[in-house]
Amino acid sequence: MTAAVVAASAALAHFVVGSRWEDVPEDVRHEAKRSLLNIFATAFAGSRDPATGIAIEVLAGLSGPATATVIGRRERFDPLTAAFLNAAAANLHDFDDTHHPTIIHPTAPVAPALFALAEGRRVAGADLLHAFILGVEVECRIGNAVSPGHYRRGWHITATCGVFGAATAVGRILGLDERRTLWALGNASAQAGGLVETLGTMSKSIGVGNAARGGLLAALLAERGYSGPERPLEGPRGFLPVTADAPDLAAITGGLGGRWELRRNTHKPYPCGVVLNPVIDACLALRDDPDLVPGRVAAITVHGHPLLRERADRPAVTTGREAQVSAQHAVAASLIFGAAGIDEFSDAAVADPRVQALRAKVAVVEDPTFPVEAARVVVTLEDGSRLASDVPHGRGTPMRPLADGEIEDKLRRLAAHGCPGLDPAPLIDAVWSLDRSPDPGALMAFTRPAET
Amino acid sequence: MTAAVVAASAALAHFVVGSRWEDVPEDVRHEAKRSLLNIFATAFAGSRDPATGIAIEVLAGLSGPATATVIGRRERFDPLTAAFLNAAAANLHDFDDTHHPTIIHPTAPVAPALFALAEGRRVAGADLLHAFILGVEVECRIGNAVSPGHYRRGWHITATCGVFGAATAVGRILGLDERRTLWALGNASAQAGGLVETLGTMSKSIGVGNAARGGLLAALLAERGYSGPERPLEGPRGFLPVTADAPDLAAITGGLGGRWELRRNTHKPYPCGVVLNPVIDACLALRDDPDLVPGRVAAITVHGHPLLRERADRPAVTTGREAQVSAQHAVAASLIFGAAGIDEFSDAAVADPRVQALRAKVAVVEDPTFPVEAARVVVTLEDGSRLASDVPHGRGTPMRPLADGEIEDKLRRLAAHGCPGLDPAPLIDAVWSLDRSPDPGALMAFTRPAET
Repeated sequence: MTAAVVAASAALAHFVVGSRWEDVPEDVRHEAKRSLLNIFATAFAGSRDPATGIAIEVLAGLSGPATATVIGRRERFDPLTAAFLNAAAANLHDFDDTHHPTIIHPTAPVAPALFALAEGRRVAGADLLHAFILGVEVECRIGNAVSPGHYRRGWHITATCGVFGAATAVGRILGLDERRTLWALGNASAQAGGLVETLGTMSKSIGVGNAARGGLLAALLAERGYSGPERPLEGPRGFLPVTADAPDLAAITGGLGGRWELRRNTHKPYPCGVVLNPVIDACLALRDDPDLVPGRVAAITVHGHPLLRERADRPAVTTGREAQVSAQHAVAASLIFGAAGIDEFSDAAVADPRVQALRAKVAVVEDPTFPVEAARVVVTLEDGSRLASDVPHGRGTPMRPLADGEIEDKLRRLAAHGCPGLDPAPLIDAVWSLDRSPDPGALMAFTRPAET
Repeated sequence: MTAAVVAASAALAHFVVGSRWEDVPEDVRHEAKRSLLNIFATAFAGSRDPATGIAIEVLAGLSGPATATVIGRRERFDPLTAAFLNAAAANLHDFDDTHHPTIIHPTAPVAPALFALAEGRRVAGADLLHAFILGVEVECRIGNAVSPGHYRRGWHITATCGVFGAATAVGRILGLDERRTLWALGNASAQAGGLVETLGTMSKSIGVGNAARGGLLAALLAERGYSGPERPLEGPRGFLPVTADAPDLAAITGGLGGRWELRRNTHKPYPCGVVLNPVIDACLALRDDPDLVPGRVAAITVHGHPLLRERADRPAVTTGREAQVSAQHAVAASLIFGAAGIDEFSDAAVADPRVQALRAKVAVVEDPTFPVEAARVVVTLEDGSRLASDVPHGRGTPMRPLADGEIEDKLRRLAAHGCPGLDPAPLIDAVWSLDRSPDPGALMAFTRPAET
C-alpha cells in the first residue's frame, strides 16, 4: 500500500474541503437534481406507510423545536428527527435511487440531513447541491471499497455507508476544515450499522433513518470540536477492515474529482429490489402475449445473475414489505395486474388469491452468465408450450436510464399517492433551479400538504 | 444445531417475558445494585468532561420535552437524549463496570435507558431492577456468543451488544409480549454499531450513547407495533453471523434463568482499560520500594496476557482519553503520582514532563501464560538492579472484587469530582433500597446539583 492509499480518510477530507463548485461537471450537477426529484417522490410514497406513522407517533413526544419538515406530512420536528423520518420514508419501499456498483441507495441518507439543516440555517442552493454531490461521492466510494463482500456478509450498505455520506455533506455545508471533516467521518464511524436481516421488515427503516440522523449529528458535533480517530476508515479497527474482508482502499482515493459516482446512479421504475427491475420488464412484456392466461400457467422460471437469487428468491411472503424483495411476488403481481407500482406491492396484493396461486409456481434460477441488469422469464403453460422474454437491460439500469420526464412523472404519481391534493409543480421547478436558489430549505414548504 | 439453539432470539424473548422477580437470586439482585451505584459514580465523573459538554451544547437545541435528568448536570432533556448523554458520560473514562468474559461494560447502555423512561412513566423499583438484570443478561449472553472474535475484529462490544440489552430492559418494563420483545431486539439489531478504532477519542462515546438511546427507541417503537425480523440474532444476515465468524449460539440459550451474567460483573478501581488494573496494582506496590526513584529508572517491562498488548500497548499518547488505554502511561503515572484516579489520566498528567520521560522507557511483553487479570512489572534501574512486582489478581477482578463500601467510596469520590457540593448519601440509600421504591425515577433528583 502506498502512503496515499493508507490515508484514505484524510484523502477524502482533503478532497471534500478543497472541492470547488466550478470543478463539478454539468452532467453531475444535473444528475444530482434528478436524484433529489426522485427522493422527494419516494419520500411522498413512504410518508403514508404505517411504519412512518408509528415512528411519528413515538417521536412526536420526544422531538425538539419543530423547525424541519417531514415530507408529505403536516407535523414538523427538530432537524435530527426530521432527517431520520425522511430518510426512513424515502427508502421504505426500496423505490429510491440505486448506485449500481454497490446497490447503495445513495440519496436517502444524505439529502434529508441536508434539507433538515437548511430549514434552520440559511445556505445557498449551489452549496447545498455541491455538498450533496460530495456526500454521495464519499458514501459510494466507501461502498465501492467494501463491495461486494460487505453486503454479502449481511451489512445493509445504504445504512452503513450512508452515515458517512450524510456526515460529509453536512460537514461540507457547515464549512468544516479538514481536521473537523475527519472528525465528522470518525463520529460517523461510531454509528455505522444496519443489517440485511432486517430487510422486508419495518426495522430496516431504522437503520436508514439513523444513517441520516447520525451523519447530521456527527458533523454538528465535529463542528464544536468533538474529536474522532485519525483513520476511521482504514485504521486497523476502522470501518473498512472491520466490515470487509479485503477492502479496496484505492477505490476510495483513485480519481477523486475526476470520476463521479453520481454518474453511476440509477432511478427505479418499480418499488422493489433493483434486481427485480428486468424481471418485471420481462413479465410486463409477456403479459401482452394473448397466449398467456395466468390460470393456464404450469410453471415459471426466472433466470438471472446470482444476486437475483441471493436477494430475492423468496417464495413465501405475507406482507407488501417482504414482497419488495420477492421475485416470486414481482412475477405474479406484474403478470396478473399488468403493473408494478406501490399498489401491486401492497399487503392487499400479497394476499390476493390469484397472486398467491401464481407465486407458488415461480422458481428462480441462478446463472452467472447474466449481468445483474438482465433477466429472462420463461413461462411453461399447462399444455407444455413455452413463452419467454429476455430483457438485456431493465428500465432504470445504467444502459436504460429513466428520462427526466419519467422521474418527474414518478414524483407526480407518488405525490398523488402519498399526499393527495398537493401540487407538485412548484417542488419540481424548485429542484431544477436549486443551484440558483438563495434559500433551498424553503422548498420543503412545497412538500407539505396545504394547511386546511 | 438443535431447534432450541437455532431460535436464539425467540428463546431470549421467551425467557425475558416469562422471568419472575422471585426467581432472581438475592446475590444477583445485590450485584445489580452495586452495578447501579458504580454507574452513577462514573456518570458523575463523565459529566464534567469536555465531550459531555459539547454533546450537551449540540443537543440542547434539538431535544424534546425536558423530562429526564443528565446525571451531575442541571440541564434536562427528553428521555432519548438523556439516555444517550448518561450512557456516554458513564462510559467515558472506561471507569464503569466490566463483564469479565467479554469486556463489555454492561450497565452504561442499559441503566440510563431505564431511568430516562422511569422519570416519565411511573414504574415499581423492583420492576426496574428486574428489567435491568434481564437487560444485562441478554446483552452479555450475546456478547458471550460473539467473543472473542467480535472485539478482536474491531467491534466495540459495549456499544454493539449494549443496544440489545437496553432494548430488552425497556421492553420488559413496558410489558411487551414475546412477539414485541422480539421486534424490540430486531429494532435494536438495525442500530448495532461502534468501532474499537474510536477508542481513545470522543467518538467512542457516541457509540455507547447510541446503544442506550437506540435500545430505548427500539422498545418504544416495538410497543406501538413497529415490527422486526423473526431472527435478528441468528438469522443468516443477523447480528451473530454478520459480526462474528463462529458465533456460539448455545452461549445465548444455555442455562437461561440458572446462570446469571451479573455474577461475572466487576467494578474498576482505576479509570482506564480493565487490562491495566493489575499493572497499576503492581506499580503502586513497587512505588513503596525506597529503591525506586523514577529518575534512576533505565527500563520497565510489563508482562501480561496477549490482550494487554493488543489493547494497551500505546507508547505515544497526547490526551487523557488516549492514556486510558495506554499501559505506558498507566505505569508512568502511577509510579510518579502514587495514585491512578481521574486526575492521573487527565490531559495535564499526560503532558507532565516527568510522566513523558518515564513513559518512553516502558515496554509491553505479551506472555500467553498470564491470565488477563494478572500482570508482572519489572523495573530495571540505571545500575542494572531490578525490582519486580507480581499481581496474580488485580483489584476489581473476579477473584478480588471491590467491596460494597469501596464502591460507595468510589461514588462519593467521583460525585465530589464531577458535581462538587452534591450530597451523595440520599442517592446511595435510594439505590440500596431500590427494590422497595414505588418510584425509582425519583432518585434521579439526587443526581442533580442543588438549584442555586
